[in-house]
Amino acid sequence: MSSTAGKFERGKLLFTPGPLTTSITVKQAMLKDYGSRDIHFIQMIKDIRNGLLDLAQVKKEEGYETVLMQGSGTFGIESVISSAIPADGKLLVIINGVYGERIAKMAGIHRINTTTLVFEENEWPDEAQVKEELDKGGYTHLAIIHSETTSGIINPVEPFGLLAKEHNCVFIVDAMSSFGAVPIDIKKCGIDFLVSSSNKCIEGVPGFAFVICKKESLQKCENQARTLSLDLFGQWKGLENDGQFRFTPPTHSLAAFHQALVELKQEGGVTARAERYFNNYQLLRNGMRGLGFKEYLPDGKQGYIISTYLYPESAAFDFKAFYEKLNDRDFIIYPGKLTRAACFRIGNIGQLFAEDINGLLGAVAEVKKEMGF
Amino acid sequence: MSSTAGKFERGKLLFTPGPLTTSITVKQAMLKDYGSRDIHFIQMIKDIRNGLLDLAQVKKEEGYETVLMQGSGTFGIESVISSAIPADGKLLVIINGVYGERIAKMAGIHRINTTTLVFEENEWPDEAQVKEELDKGGYTHLAIIHSETTSGIINPVEPFGLLAKEHNCVFIVDAMSSFGAVPIDIKKCGIDFLVSSSNKCIEGVPGFAFVICKKESLQKCENQARTLSLDLFGQWKGLENDGQFRFTPPTHSLAAFHQALVELKQEGGVTARAERYFNNYQLLRNGMRGLGFKEYLPDGKQGYIISTYLYPESAAFDFKAFYEKLNDRDFIIYPGKLTRAACFRIGNIGQLFAEDINGLLGAVAEVKKEMGF
Repeated sequence: MSSTAGKFERGKLLFTPGPLTTSITVKQAMLKDYGSRDIHFIQMIKDIRNGLLDLAQVKKEEGYETVLMQGSGTFGIESVISSAIPADGKLLVIINGVYGERIAKMAGIHRINTTTLVFEENEWPDEAQVKEELDKGGYTHLAIIHSETTSGIINPVEPFGLLAKEHNCVFIVDAMSSFGAVPIDIKKCGIDFLVSSSNKCIEGVPGFAFVICKKESLQKCENQARTLSLDLFGQWKGLENDGQFRFTPPTHSLAAFHQALVELKQEGGVTARAERYFNNYQLLRNGMRGLGFKEYLPDGKQGYIISTYLYPESAAFDFKAFYEKLNDRDFIIYPGKLTRAACFRIGNIGQLFAEDINGLLGAVAEVKKEMGF
Repeated sequence: MSSTAGKFERGKLLFTPGPLTTSITVKQAMLKDYGSRDIHFIQMIKDIRNGLLDLAQVKKEEGYETVLMQGSGTFGIESVISSAIPADGKLLVIINGVYGERIAKMAGIHRINTTTLVFEENEWPDEAQVKEELDKGGYTHLAIIHSETTSGIINPVEPFGLLAKEHNCVFIVDAMSSFGAVPIDIKKCGIDFLVSSSNKCIEGVPGFAFVICKKESLQKCENQARTLSLDLFGQWKGLENDGQFRFTPPTHSLAAFHQALVELKQEGGVTARAERYFNNYQLLRNGMRGLGFKEYLPDGKQGYIISTYLYPESAAFDFKAFYEKLNDRDFIIYPGKLTRAACFRIGNIGQLFAEDINGLLGAVAEVKKEMGF
C-alpha cells in the first residue's frame, strides 16, 4: 500500500476525480475471465454487496440493501431517479454545480414534476430556502449532491435529510465522489438512496454504479421504472433471486472492485482513507499556495476530494499548454467546469501518496518557470 | 494466438456466449489506468470507432457512424429502441427466442406502439407472415435478432431487411452474439442500426455495447430519447464533439477492446474467426454425437456461435451435477433457456481452439461415465 512500486509500473498518475490511479493488485484482479453465471463469480457479487453495506455502516437486518448497476455513475443516478419517483411524484433538486443540474435534466427527460433550487457554486445550499420550498407542499422526493465535483465543495447532508423527513420526502443523495472516504451517517441523515460508483474513493476501475437503498423505499419502486436496463427494483430482484445480474455484468470491473474493497479494509477503512486524502489535499494546497495559485473555494468549504484552482492572472498562462506539459511529465490533471470562473481541478483521490503530491508540485513549479507565468 | 499458454494461466475455460475466454494479452491491456479525458485515451476511442466501421465493412463517407454505449448489450439495444422510435412510431418485433422477447418488453416499457410476431424457437421467422403484417401498414421500425442465443439459431437477415425497405421501415438488428464472426452485409441488408457488445465475438471483456448506425437514421434520433444515459444521439454528439464519452467510460474495458480488435485483425479478420468458430462447432457436434447427445436444432439452422443440446433421456442425468463436475475440471458450460425443451448450451466462441474442444469432450466423456447416464 505504498507508492514505492515505482513510476514505471504505475504509468501516468491521475489527479482526477475518477477514473483514477488504482493499485497494481486491483488491476491484476482483472487478469482472469469469469463466467457471469459461475458460482465463484456469484459469490464475488455477494461479497461486494455485503462489503458495501459494511462500508456504509448499515445492515440488511436494519432494512438496507445494495443494488449494483452496469454503466457509469450517471446510470446509477438515473436508475434511482427513473425508478423511485412515481408518475404523480414531485422532486426538489438542490443544485450548486453540474451534477445537481444533471439530476434535474434527467428528471425532466422522464417528465417528472421537478423544481430546482440553484445556489452559487461556492456556497452551501441554504437550509431556509429549501425549507420554504418544501413547506409549499406536494414534494415527495428531495435530491442533493454530497461532494459536488464541479467545485469540490462538500455539501452538508444531514440538515437536508432532516428537512426531507419532516416533509415526508424520500431523500436521494449523490455521494459519487465521496462515498468510502468522507464519512456519512446514512441512518442519521435519513438517506433512502445513496449512489456512488466503482471508480471513485473505493479505488476500483469504472464499469458500474451502486446504490445503498432503504429497503422500504426500494420496495416502493416495483413496477415504477421507466426503462428496462435501469430498473432499480428489477435489478435488485434479479440479484436477490439467483445472485446474478439480469444482464451481462462487467465481470472484470467487479473482480477489481472486490480486490479494491479488500485493500480499503487493509488500509484501515473509511477513516484511514479519509486521512490519506486529507493529507494529500493539505500538502497540495500548501504547495500550490507557495507557487502563487489561488483556490476557488474558501478553506472551510473546500472538500479534500478534488481541489479547484483559479487560472493565474497572467498572459503567459494557457491551460492547454499547462496540462500538456504536466502530462509530458506523467501527471494528469483535470479541466475546470465552473459556470463563472476560469479554473482547473486537481484530484486528491486514488492511489496517490505524499510523494506523488510532492512529485506533482515539483512538476508544476518546473512548468510555471518554463511558461513564465 | 494458440492455446499453448497453458491451462494454469488461462484459468477456467468459458464455453459460454460471453463473457467469454479472452486472450491474456487482451486482459493485460487493462493493467494501465487511463484518464477519461486524456488525449491518449481519446485516440483509443477514435481507433475503436473506426475499427468497428472497418469490421462492418462500411465507411464514414458512405454515411455510417459508430456509437459506443456504457453497460451491457441490453443497454445498447435499449439505447436504440428508446432513441430511434418517435412517439408516433410503430414497431414490429420478429421473435423466436428470449432476446426478441426482450426487445418487445423494453418497447412496452417505453410505451412504444409494438406488435410482435412470435415463431417457434427452432424455426426461422416466416417471411410471408412478416410481409403480411407489414402490409397492414403504419409500421415505422422492424427489429430482428441475428444470432438468437436462446437456441443458437442464426436467422436470415437480408429478406427481412428487404421487406423493411419495401415498407419504408427503419431496420434494427440485434447482432450481439454474431458480429465479428458471422459475416453480415449491412448495406445489402439495409440495416439502419446494428447492435453488438464488447464481450462477444470480438473477444473483449464486458463493459460496453456498440451500435453501427446509418447516419441519416441516427440524425433522426435527435431530441427523441426517453432517457439521458441511453440517449443514442446525445452519446454520438458527445463522441463527435470532443472525442469523449458524455459520462465516465469503462476505460479498462475499452483498452482491452482496443487490443482485441488488433488481435482479430492479426487472426485474419471476420473470415478467419468464423472459420475457427465453425471448426470448434463441428468438432463439438461430432464429439457430442459420438457421446450420444442430441442437438435441439436441425443442422442447417444451428449456428456455430452456441450449440444447444437436449438433456439425455436418462434418470441418471442431472444438469446441476453435470455442470459442477465439468466446472471442477475447469470447463464452464451454459444452462438452457428454451421455453419448450430441457436443454443446456455450449458456446464455441472466445479464445477456444480445437485442443480446448477436445479437452471439453474428454471431460464430458468422463462425467458421463461417472454419472452413469
